Amino acid sequence: MGTQSYPMSGGDGLNSYAQNSGYQRLVVEYAKPMVKKAIEDELEFTNFSENSTTFAIADFGCSVGSNTLIATQNIIEAVKEKYQSKHPDHPPLDFQVFFSDHVNNDFNTLFRNLPPSREFFAAGVPGSFHNRLFPKASLHVGHSSYAVHWLSKLPEEILDPNSPAYNKDSIHCTGFSKEVAKAFLEQFHIDMESFLNARAQEVVSGGLFLLTVAGLPEGTVCSQTYHGVNHDVLDYCLKDMAEEGIISKEKLEAFNIPIYFPPFEDLEAVLKRSTYFSMEKIDPSLAADMGTPITPDMVPSLASGFRAISEELIRHHFGDEIVDSVFERFLKKISESLHLFDDKHRPINIFVVLKRKN
Amino acid sequence: MGTQSYPMSGGDGLNSYAQNSGYQRLVVEYAKPMVKKAIEDELEFTNFSENSTTFAIADFGCSVGSNTLIATQNIIEAVKEKYQSKHPDHPPLDFQVFFSDHVNNDFNTLFRNLPPSREFFAAGVPGSFHNRLFPKASLHVGHSSYAVHWLSKLPEEILDPNSPAYNKDSIHCTGFSKEVAKAFLEQFHIDMESFLNARAQEVVSGGLFLLTVAGLPEGTVCSQTYHGVNHDVLDYCLKDMAEEGIISKEKLEAFNIPIYFPPFEDLEAVLKRSTYFSMEKIDPSLAADMGTPITPDMVPSLASGFRAISEELIRHHFGDEIVDSVFERFLKKISESLHLFDDKHRPINIFVVLKRKN
Repeated sequence: MGTQSYPMSGGDGLNSYAQNSGYQRLVVEYAKPMVKKAIEDELEFTNFSENSTTFAIADFGCSVGSNTLIATQNIIEAVKEKYQSKHPDHPPLDFQVFFSDHVNNDFNTLFRNLPPSREFFAAGVPGSFHNRLFPKASLHVGHSSYAVHWLSKLPEEILDPNSPAYNKDSIHCTGFSKEVAKAFLEQFHIDMESFLNARAQEVVSGGLFLLTVAGLPEGTVCSQTYHGVNHDVLDYCLKDMAEEGIISKEKLEAFNIPIYFPPFEDLEAVLKRSTYFSMEKIDPSLAADMGTPITPDMVPSLASGFRAISEELIRHHFGDEIVDSVFERFLKKISESLHLFDDKHRPINIFVVLKRKN
Repeated sequence: MGTQSYPMSGGDGLNSYAQNSGYQRLVVEYAKPMVKKAIEDELEFTNFSENSTTFAIADFGCSVGSNTLIATQNIIEAVKEKYQSKHPDHPPLDFQVFFSDHVNNDFNTLFRNLPPSREFFAAGVPGSFHNRLFPKASLHVGHSSYAVHWLSKLPEEILDPNSPAYNKDSIHCTGFSKEVAKAFLEQFHIDMESFLNARAQEVVSGGLFLLTVAGLPEGTVCSQTYHGVNHDVLDYCLKDMAEEGIISKEKLEAFNIPIYFPPFEDLEAVLKRSTYFSMEKIDPSLAADMGTPITPDMVPSLASGFRAISEELIRHHFGDEIVDSVFERFLKKISESLHLFDDKHRPINIFVVLKRKN
């Protein structure tokens, strides 16, 4: 189906996503009260009975843990509480949690990270969330945090020298070129539509989809945010390496990161267009601040967090042999460039509650 | 929960189970007409409707493929055919296939081996099949082939020098010591009861469990079968290595293989004791003959097949450094000992159809 996929770094080692996803965890933890309230206010229990007690939850873009475990545990707690108060006479629900990510995600590590004693039945589901992954009406709550900014592919124009959207001078959507930003936004809309259409088939009527999206603060472009600074610094490192002849300039020009952080309005627009989901809430105030400003002691974790999400992309495009060097340079350059963060903005985290219409 | 687990060798490499499970595949292929007939004759479709179309299949002890794919595909074909003829006016079923094995099974390889275009939704379920793995009444057909001979643990007496069942002289249940065989049989019964009780909760009323079990031909003990010869030859290799001081004699005495191939009557007895399943069929005639006698050209695949299922056990008990040497010796000794197979028997394959009572 042509979807590109670059998983988070696998395993449990020093450079793994499992050990380097503190910011993403903070987002999940800060979302907890919003998740609880969404379930309290919006979730409908239909078709549960003495003989039908399975409550199915799926996390899309789960990676290798432990963030997905925290997120799904928060959902379970809220559902249990609501169910017990609504149906005190019913037998307890059987929770089945599906952890879903690309087929090249490290499911072995994810499974080893599951708590041995747990109150749910676990399953892993491999595949792109831009496609169907579950049977019709088989999920009660879907969830995705910090994942849908990964596009299914780069917009073609970005790499086309004859297009006004040719992104020759950068490796990501900085936001400074309107044509480039437009091409990325269009791909984001296409991908969100595939995502929502697939989920609409999978989530039962009255069920919920809880979505956390990293977006741009009002009036900013990506390079004016912390995420943008990281990508720009990576770009500087790669340009240095091209200058030094370590990588070819042509290869660098053909490299772009398939990530798009949407402005609030653009996310809202595509969600509102869904025929199947009603948007019960869209809240850009999910604060997850690791402390500002960025101080020198935060640099190692910032650098390894960035490595965990981007090294597979680098490896795939440039080859394994340059990966260590890229991220050594990245660490050094970020340490020397803390001033770059000074007038920059945190990306906002937009928490969305979608309800499957009847 | 104290269950021991020794997965089949992972990956896709030369020594992998994926590349070395030809005999197990033959069993699955030969079972196809029996699977088809069981589904035709016994499967009941309850609660399917316009709005409820998910048909859930689980394979227990799936390993890394491709045998599990053949087995589940055979089930899907038979179910589709029966459903279409019974309910030609209903919308087609949505198949969801759960591939289950120990948490240290190589699910990453299994997922990569899934056909990219497939007519089912796939999920992996990590955990021991001696425990609950699925929500109540969530499966329509369960399946397990060539897996339940793996015990959850060794019977304790086997390793106890003060017990009459102390298995000092062998590394497996040869069958020549009545006490040893009795201890293994008791553990097998305990494990089958856990297995059946767990599955009884998980399979819907009117649903099926299809089970293929490697057993002993009437009047034989394990060492009089091909499987037994393999284990005996492994035993000779390890004894040589202990003689040569490469492994310690104490370590060898503390080593036993947690496998039990039941005689037909013993399997039948434990299955008949199930309160929840009715045994619709038990057929010891599932022939899967790779050709007899064993000829020299069959030795490499025989040896690598045996390595794929037993090397993790060896590695776990004796350490990684001796694994290659053990199986080099095994290959050599088997080549020199083809006469050992001469008067030996193929293990029988017992095909069982269990139906979940209402």
